[in-house]
Amino acid sequence: MDLLHTIYLIAITAEAMSGAIMGMRRGMDLFGICLLGTVTALGGGTARDVLLGHYPVGWIANPEYLAFTVGAAIVTAMVARHMHHLRQVFLLVDGLGLVAFTVIGCGVAMEMGVHLSIVVLAGVITGVFGGLLRDILCNEVPMVLQRELYATVALFTGVLYVGLLWLGVSNTIASLATLCAGFLFRVLAMTFHWKLPDFQGRDIRGLD
Amino acid sequence: MDLLHTIYLIAITAEAMSGAIMGMRRGMDLFGICLLGTVTALGGGTARDVLLGHYPVGWIANPEYLAFTVGAAIVTAMVARHMHHLRQVFLLVDGLGLVAFTVIGCGVAMEMGVHLSIVVLAGVITGVFGGLLRDILCNEVPMVLQRELYATVALFTGVLYVGLLWLGVSNTIASLATLCAGFLFRVLAMTFHWKLPDFQGRDIRGLD
Amino acid sequence: MDLLHTIYLIAITAEAMSGAIMGMRRGMDLFGICLLGTVTALGGGTARDVLLGHYPVGWIANPEYLAFTVGAAIVTAMVARHMHHLRQVFLLVDGLGLVAFTVIGCGVAMEMGVHLSIVVLAGVITGVFGGLLRDILCNEVPMVLQRELYATVALFTGVLYVGLLWLGVSNTIASLATLCAGFLFRVLAMTFHWKLPDFQGRDIRGLD
Repeated sequence: MDLLHTIYLIAITAEAMSGAIMGMRRGMDLFGICLLGTVTALGGGTARDVLLGHYPVGWIANPEYLAFTVGAAIVTAMVARHMHHLRQVFLLVDGLGLVAFTVIGCGVAMEMGVHLSIVVLAGVITGVFGGLLRDILCNEVPMVLQRELYATVALFTGVLYVGLLWLGVSNTIASLATLCAGFLFRVLAMTFHWKLPDFQGRDIRGLD
Repeated sequence: MDLLHTIYLIAITAEAMSGAIMGMRRGMDLFGICLLGTVTALGGGTARDVLLGHYPVGWIANPEYLAFTVGAAIVTAMVARHMHHLRQVFLLVDGLGLVAFTVIGCGVAMEMGVHLSIVVLAGVITGVFGGLLRDILCNEVPMVLQRELYATVALFTGVLYVGLLWLGVSNTIASLATLCAGFLFRVLAMTFHWKLPDFQGRDIRGLD
Repeated sequence: MDLLHTIYLIAITAEAMSGAIMGMRRGMDLFGICLLGTVTALGGGTARDVLLGHYPVGWIANPEYLAFTVGAAIVTAMVARHMHHLRQVFLLVDGLGLVAFTVIGCGVAMEMGVHLSIVVLAGVITGVFGGLLRDILCNEVPMVLQRELYATVALFTGVLYVGLLWLGVSNTIASLATLCAGFLFRVLAMTFHWKLPDFQGRDIRGLD
């Protein structure tokens, strides 16, 4: 689907930019900034492909993706001081990207004929693992494990997409409907600060 | 072997619970708790499969494993405040799981016809990488690199299992004997606080 | 090429030693030291093989590599107190190893028929991911993302090697010329403290 592919390219560019800014804030050099931007943008799809054994991995089959992410990181390194004015735009593109990544990830897994639960999970992995790997490289507990309905949006998106296909809806319509519904969910979650329960568990005694 | 499979299911449940508790103690939300529990339980087998190129990965071929780990994590989130009373039980199940993971990992690698040293190593990776990935996600130096004879138990288990098979012992008997001997080793190591030398090396000058 | 293979064996030995010392300085036990040395030495090639879907992974096809890295780590644990006298030698071997890893990584990717940009990237990954994984296991922001022209040397080496082959130079001559030029670049970069721009970006406002 052409719309999905266009959204994908916009999304990896935005993800690479936000990863690059995170690298700059930690004093990384130009290589670190480019790598962190690329991992943020393409890490989710890469994790999905390696876990599914889906070769060649996305950016190896389409090296132009790397041109997008590295180019975005270099541009970011030059204009980063002014980018926080665009914070709202980034959050929206990031939300759209999360939903698009998830739909694309589900589609890849579905073509491989795995169980529907794995299809949904492949979508979630595609959506959230880029940010997770970025945070590991920055030596932080991944944000996605801690707060905001980021992973939940991916899960909702995946379940909706797979459910619509299972009901016999065409792929085009299922993709469009899921993109809209998932994006709306994400915007609502951000606007109203929805979050999952976190159990105030810091005082719980461990088992090890 | 049915016994081994039953022990495996009990072990991934217990590992998922201990991972979930670690996530709660770090203030993770429900998604983080489920992911951390699942990575702890299934991360070792996943690392082994990806490194060996053994597709499909375990939980993709058997999605019901995910139901066990996610279910265990959710139950844990509800009853965690009382689970430290079961600490001794967990340590025993964890020890049994370590040995079962190792035997299963050796078996997978052996079927692929790799060198016997790689068979043993595949067992060790299956046994210890779940906890290693859990600690990386929690932003800590993996415990398995630092103390307690955890990896050594896996190594002993793998060598014993491969050795018995190499001597012509049947798979059933080799598995049973290895499970018992490995578990005994683990219990003794915990009881008497055996540990590997650690060289008091913190004052050593680096090379970089 | 025999020279390249000999350099490779020397390089993984030296990398394993430097990884082992890093583990000792963090108080790891013998298993941790051996694992950290092995990951430092073989992690780059492993990451490359998994991403390319190039199975069997190097050390699974050639388990003797593990004997080199584990042996080097154990020897290091015994003599580490005196090894800083050899610091200059290590830096030179490490630089030679970086260049050899990169050339070998490019060669593996080229045989798989991927795009030339991916060939260069496979070389860079082979060169730098061992150290990156080592730093993640030690719970630090990877050094290669932050300073010194380490990754840049790998990129220069990869581009030069691929460029020479593309111009029709024979593999033997291209390898030799690239080894010399890349090593010279590395030595110059260390001698004159060349580094990439790092943008003094710590005060930049984030997007998340």
